Amino acid sequence: MKIPRQNLRTPGPTPSPPEVLEAMSTSMINHRGPEFRELIIGITEKMKQVYMTQNRMYILTASGTGALEAAVVNTLSPGDKVLAVSVGYFGDRFTDVTRVYGADVIKMDFEWGTAADPDAIREALRADPDIRAVQVTHNETSTGITNDLASISKVVKEESNALLLVDAVSSMGCVPLPTDELRCDMVCTASQKGLMVPPGLSFVSVSEEAWEARETAKMPRFYFDLPAAQRYLERGQTPWTPNLSLFYGLDVALDMMLKEGMENVFKRHKHIANMTRQGVRALGLELLADEAHASDTVTSVKVPEGVDAGKLSAIMQTEHSVVLAGGQGVLQGKVFRIGHMGLVPEEDIREVLQALETTLPKVGFKPAHAAAG
Amino acid sequence: MKIPRQNLRTPGPTPSPPEVLEAMSTSMINHRGPEFRELIIGITEKMKQVYMTQNRMYILTASGTGALEAAVVNTLSPGDKVLAVSVGYFGDRFTDVTRVYGADVIKMDFEWGTAADPDAIREALRADPDIRAVQVTHNETSTGITNDLASISKVVKEESNALLLVDAVSSMGCVPLPTDELRCDMVCTASQKGLMVPPGLSFVSVSEEAWEARETAKMPRFYFDLPAAQRYLERGQTPWTPNLSLFYGLDVALDMMLKEGMENVFKRHKHIANMTRQGVRALGLELLADEAHASDTVTSVKVPEGVDAGKLSAIMQTEHSVVLAGGQGVLQGKVFRIGHMGLVPEEDIREVLQALETTLPKVGFKPAHAAAG
Repeated sequence: MKIPRQNLRTPGPTPSPPEVLEAMSTSMINHRGPEFRELIIGITEKMKQVYMTQNRMYILTASGTGALEAAVVNTLSPGDKVLAVSVGYFGDRFTDVTRVYGADVIKMDFEWGTAADPDAIREALRADPDIRAVQVTHNETSTGITNDLASISKVVKEESNALLLVDAVSSMGCVPLPTDELRCDMVCTASQKGLMVPPGLSFVSVSEEAWEARETAKMPRFYFDLPAAQRYLERGQTPWTPNLSLFYGLDVALDMMLKEGMENVFKRHKHIANMTRQGVRALGLELLADEAHASDTVTSVKVPEGVDAGKLSAIMQTEHSVVLAGGQGVLQGKVFRIGHMGLVPEEDIREVLQALETTLPKVGFKPAHAAAG
Repeated sequence: MKIPRQNLRTPGPTPSPPEVLEAMSTSMINHRGPEFRELIIGITEKMKQVYMTQNRMYILTASGTGALEAAVVNTLSPGDKVLAVSVGYFGDRFTDVTRVYGADVIKMDFEWGTAADPDAIREALRADPDIRAVQVTHNETSTGITNDLASISKVVKEESNALLLVDAVSSMGCVPLPTDELRCDMVCTASQKGLMVPPGLSFVSVSEEAWEARETAKMPRFYFDLPAAQRYLERGQTPWTPNLSLFYGLDVALDMMLKEGMENVFKRHKHIANMTRQGVRALGLELLADEAHASDTVTSVKVPEGVDAGKLSAIMQTEHSVVLAGGQGVLQGKVFRIGHMGLVPEEDIREVLQALETTLPKVGFKPAHAAAG
């Protein structure tokens, strides 16, 4: 399949740097041989640096949802009480995993576009001392909100012995997430977001407390069994055949990120996010997300009254080669999203803003810029 | 990671043709956009041709074990009686999946190196009319045995209403497996064997009977939920972010296979397998597998008395760049394996045989060739 040059602004998959794509073409090796051993040991160590953790780290051949499933089934039993905090589509998905496997889920919903309130979590934990785990989305990709994980973690650890299970699929490697400092018991992410690698690998870190939980956890697990992953990792292997090509690509991407320095990576994301939000507002468009918690990895923009979101996206793609993401769940047709995670040059964001300025009048909205121009 | 040229004879991952590896470097696209829709619809149709089926076909971002899990959890409930036929390591793995999810498993073991006996399956089905599913490995990668799936299927369908769940990970696209003609209810395979693509995608076909079973099946499932896969496939999508790079590679590989013609692909495999077995025997080595059921995709060779299998493999790799696979489970150290699935030039097999002839004397075995020479 030939893909012409696109300005791919989906919040994952993100564009992979050429060096990463090139590494994806490396020949196959024996996944139970010495070259792979070296590869997985190196990548596991580098991933721990990105996670800022000394915890266990497992790499799964699956997309991010697989890591969420792994976090749940390796720590919990049917009937366990779980406080599931959701601020959007991916919070709901995480909740669904836990529910399907038979946990007794206490769902705590916050309005889409707002962040989770740590005080509400405190109250829920006080009201029910049997809560075994709290699950939360660090960065909600559907709304462009980053939850205040430091405050949430503080509440969870002060008020309970619950495990803190974190979906960091669209935040890891983009915004600071010091796993150990924030005492996050399991942190899940995936290859196709801040790690700049194509989709197909996911990751989960496991604290000692969460690791102990595996012994009593009774939810069934096979493909996502982390004790199996641990047994094989000790030999430099994975239990099932790993996605070798993504290991090759990830090794290159991690070297790039660590060479740049994670602090610089975070600064770069903050700068590009500010630039995006300012540019969008300057066009007279409104952001969905509460500004105090606006995400540095994805911006959700309200579709103006009367504008057909599908038509807007179609013109942006066909006439400007800019690929936006649509709204998910109840936000379908109500928002469009601009991803800015991974390696995003300023030029790409300028191109998006210019394309919006040209396209919006064609779908019935007069942008502020054009009005001023 | 730089990989020098190897003669990779692991029975998966198999070497990918250069055209496939090149496609793996294609840029990312929106997995919920029009290019991916075209890609998944095309690949799904081509996979049906390889499977010789009109059944439903789902593509999972996971390795083969994930497809086995999908076959089990989408059709069965805890407590369901399942006849699990095993002739080796991968038959045992399939059984473990079913057991972990709570089925009432009746395990039927055949000696490693022999094939399953359809008459024994007939007796088991007659003895227990409540058997809900029969699971069987088409080609057992650990021993180099291909089960007589036609006879097994005939027995299952004559004697019962049980679903037939088939692990075809190391047979699909290499030896004939006419899914519909053999009335296989679920057939699982993976990208890194006969399909010649790197690991990370797996596949499952679903008959109408198996599809109906999803409605009553109570084993929990989320990542591997096939009704979710169906809902998304209708829009040309997958429920979770798919491994785009492997879709690109697979599209190329399927075109190559279908252009060659599946009958020719099967003939090619048979020829290379015969050449391998004859060459191995000519060296004075013994095959593990019962000759009547010897696999056309992998040959398991007994390690001669007194020979250190690890040392043999190490010399083959370091001095000849030939990568053999070791024995699995109870066969560890007892056999080595030569994979010959996918695109294998005769030259590569000749190189393996010549390298063996040179290496065997160094590990204490005098090959017949050398003796004659």
